[in-house]
Amino acid sequence: MTNTETVTADVLPKNVNGVAVDDLAKTVDAIKATPAIAKFNFRIRNQWLDAAKNSSTVDTFYGAGQERSRSKPFVLEADEPPVLLGSDTAANPVEHLLHALAGCLTTSMIYHAAARGIQIEEVESALEGDIDLHGFLELDDNVRNGFQGIRVNFKIKADVPDEQLAQVCHLGTGHSPVFDSLTNGVPVRVTAERL
Amino acid sequence: MTNTETVTADVLPKNVNGVAVDDLAKTVDAIKATPAIAKFNFRIRNQWLDAAKNSSTVDTFYGAGQERSRSKPFVLEADEPPVLLGSDTAANPVEHLLHALAGCLTTSMIYHAAARGIQIEEVESALEGDIDLHGFLELDDNVRNGFQGIRVNFKIKADVPDEQLAQVCHLGTGHSPVFDSLTNGVPVRVTAERL
Repeated sequence: MTNTETVTADVLPKNVNGVAVDDLAKTVDAIKATPAIAKFNFRIRNQWLDAAKNSSTVDTFYGAGQERSRSKPFVLEADEPPVLLGSDTAANPVEHLLHALAGCLTTSMIYHAAARGIQIEEVESALEGDIDLHGFLELDDNVRNGFQGIRVNFKIKADVPDEQLAQVCHLGTGHSPVFDSLTNGVPVRVTAERL
Repeated sequence: MTNTETVTADVLPKNVNGVAVDDLAKTVDAIKATPAIAKFNFRIRNQWLDAAKNSSTVDTFYGAGQERSRSKPFVLEADEPPVLLGSDTAANPVEHLLHALAGCLTTSMIYHAAARGIQIEEVESALEGDIDLHGFLELDDNVRNGFQGIRVNFKIKADVPDEQLAQVCHLGTGHSPVFDSLTNGVPVRVTAERL
């Protein structure tokens, strides 16, 4: 990628796009020295409340060689709008999925731009995805339950010439864990036991 | 699936698991009469704030033949913990993805159990997924950026014999839009323009 290679640690500024790029370089060096610290395990716990309402608690995770936790757990809610028989107290699960995708593409872009010394001033994105309820409602076996397609449009204000705008965007798609998970699929094992 | 077929509308109770099953049956009938109303389009808008912090606004969607909006938009935040160079003000994008999956599996299970007259008393789930940063940090081409695998364990208290517990769980996996999207993948088109 022309003009977007990772610069070496000794010439890195301390902070680009709010990202401590010196710490990012140290993380890369630490993983090269001790590959096992690259392994992360993320977790949530969810509880059904009523109808379409449920709530997740986000707290602990494993990473960089040790168990970690937040000072206070984050709580994420889900519901459905009335047309989908919910009470509309929170975004629904597929909207949360779009948020996960937007957030991950954006952070991946910002971090990898920072590592290359590319200053980003503003990033906005609009996402949309199509679902046909013939799948969920078992009315047509040829219609999938999930998103048929998702479209993401980024608006970026950055210190790059026009021809590099797509390359900056590719820093997101080329590194994002959620983009990879969603476009290439993930093996999900589901088990159930009696409460 | 033994004993879990959808019962007909005339014998449906009004409400099972908090779900208005009579309205669910009406929705199915309405889609059979007018297939186009099954098409939904969900959207979010995301704005980068600083480093790993960004925020999504969830408001409008299209469904059942018309544009719809919430009385007040939902705001979803994202950040990263300090070990991933963030300021830990919110769950991170891959945790949001796990929440989307948990919420969608749970709601799908609850709705389809309701449609079959199966009363669910409690549902809890614990989700975890593994990510190896060798992918995101471009340290090993053989390591993917995304989740290597996700494990979901449900604990269910329901009025079913032991041998039907897995079938109740399958009502979630067999219908969930997020589960299908994540396990089978979704085409995602990403474009960028200058702000």
